[in-house]
Amino acid sequence: MIGIFDSGIGGLTVVKALMEYLPGYDIIYFGDTARTPYGTKSSETVKKYALENTEFLLSKGAKVIVIACNTASSVAMESVAENFDVPIFEVITPAVELSINTSHKLCIGIIGTRATVKSGIYEKKIKELNPQAKVYSRACPLLVPLVEEGWLKKPETNMIVKKYLHPLKVRQIDTLILGCTHYPLLKNIIQKKMGKKVNIIDSSIAVANNVKAFLEKHKNLDNMLSKKGRCRFFVSDVTEQFEKTATSMLKRKINLEHVSSG
Amino acid sequence: MIGIFDSGIGGLTVVKALMEYLPGYDIIYFGDTARTPYGTKSSETVKKYALENTEFLLSKGAKVIVIACNTASSVAMESVAENFDVPIFEVITPAVELSINTSHKLCIGIIGTRATVKSGIYEKKIKELNPQAKVYSRACPLLVPLVEEGWLKKPETNMIVKKYLHPLKVRQIDTLILGCTHYPLLKNIIQKKMGKKVNIIDSSIAVANNVKAFLEKHKNLDNMLSKKGRCRFFVSDVTEQFEKTATSMLKRKINLEHVSSG
Repeated sequence: MIGIFDSGIGGLTVVKALMEYLPGYDIIYFGDTARTPYGTKSSETVKKYALENTEFLLSKGAKVIVIACNTASSVAMESVAENFDVPIFEVITPAVELSINTSHKLCIGIIGTRATVKSGIYEKKIKELNPQAKVYSRACPLLVPLVEEGWLKKPETNMIVKKYLHPLKVRQIDTLILGCTHYPLLKNIIQKKMGKKVNIIDSSIAVANNVKAFLEKHKNLDNMLSKKGRCRFFVSDVTEQFEKTATSMLKRKINLEHVSSG
Repeated sequence: MIGIFDSGIGGLTVVKALMEYLPGYDIIYFGDTARTPYGTKSSETVKKYALENTEFLLSKGAKVIVIACNTASSVAMESVAENFDVPIFEVITPAVELSINTSHKLCIGIIGTRATVKSGIYEKKIKELNPQAKVYSRACPLLVPLVEEGWLKKPETNMIVKKYLHPLKVRQIDTLILGCTHYPLLKNIIQKKMGKKVNIIDSSIAVANNVKAFLEKHKNLDNMLSKKGRCRFFVSDVTEQFEKTATSMLKRKINLEHVSSG
């Protein structure tokens, strides 16, 4: 089973990509909706939550862990890898590799939560791969609540996106990493604001590709994973809003199972 | 000591009002910043959090509890009152009483989080006091993140407030209850949008008045409360953002003490 966790609903964009790239694999998802969002919280708190979430997924039989939350990937990846002896994927590295491989001018923008941007992880990883790259990042804390409210096409959302992206547009970046799993839902207005020439990198697709490549290399592990196409969705708080948004994101009726967080 | 809890920072508007109406009383505040916000979560989860928070404040010596969060007041007041044998105040009843006593047309609007509005508590309490009253309520889920971002005067905030309030303006309400402790920080633009004739009721002031009246009646309890003017501020997650906003709200430097939630 592939175990995936996120602070809430955003990680379902990764589930969707995994379903597409690795069809039939069993998936177990945990959305920490009782403590969402992570992006405004301190790194100590997010680390604690990430360790608890991983432990939960492993207890349910996960053999591979995907941290489908940029904030948790930014601040808790090392702690999780140190504490658990299974393959761990996060959403930062695949997006960074893809951005370096596809950017012509090596002028890369990143948008994310306050915690992700503050961690400086994207910048660090990009510079490790190519010290020549220019990196500009911008925290966009209001985009998560706007997405969770379903305000995907409202003029107010448009204005807020415009305001956030303006400093990146001025820098004439040619690549923009969506450093938060909620943001792919705003991809259209982000693309429109940045212009057609800017390549928008969706980390959910990048990570699904990496998991696929890893499993192709590690046949032993691949054989251990069940491929009955079962998906289980656990959340620490059941709300109508989650059910509604999740159903529309995955385009299928999902059954939410409740579990206590922490 | 007067114990106050909130999901995060909003309850500091109540602390400020208590400092004004009951100067010198010792106050202990708990902001559940590791699990904030409550307004988008289910009532079961909010109840669990409210019981834990009350227990924490009592363990620190609180003799009176103020639930300074509309969402927790809406869904958890009864559970808290059943489980603990101390005077419990919440922010709903004082605002409801004030609205009934001051509204001429008895045409009252309420704005709050999704959870507060869904609970129907304001409508129920208003109708209990006066079945003739007309009540219109509106969930405004984006106002909390906008306040927490400090976007108090941005045009986008103005537009979003306008959109949320429009249906209430059409109803020609003469009184508007700010059913969330974050909203007093947006009072100016709310008043501007609704017009000068609409009476805006700030529940933080209403509850401070009620606590004061209660203590004047219950001299025994009043004598038990320490009046050395000490204030302690506990949070379940320490972030720069909280410290910054809290300092500007209370106009004094505050020392945050960290404690695990749950």
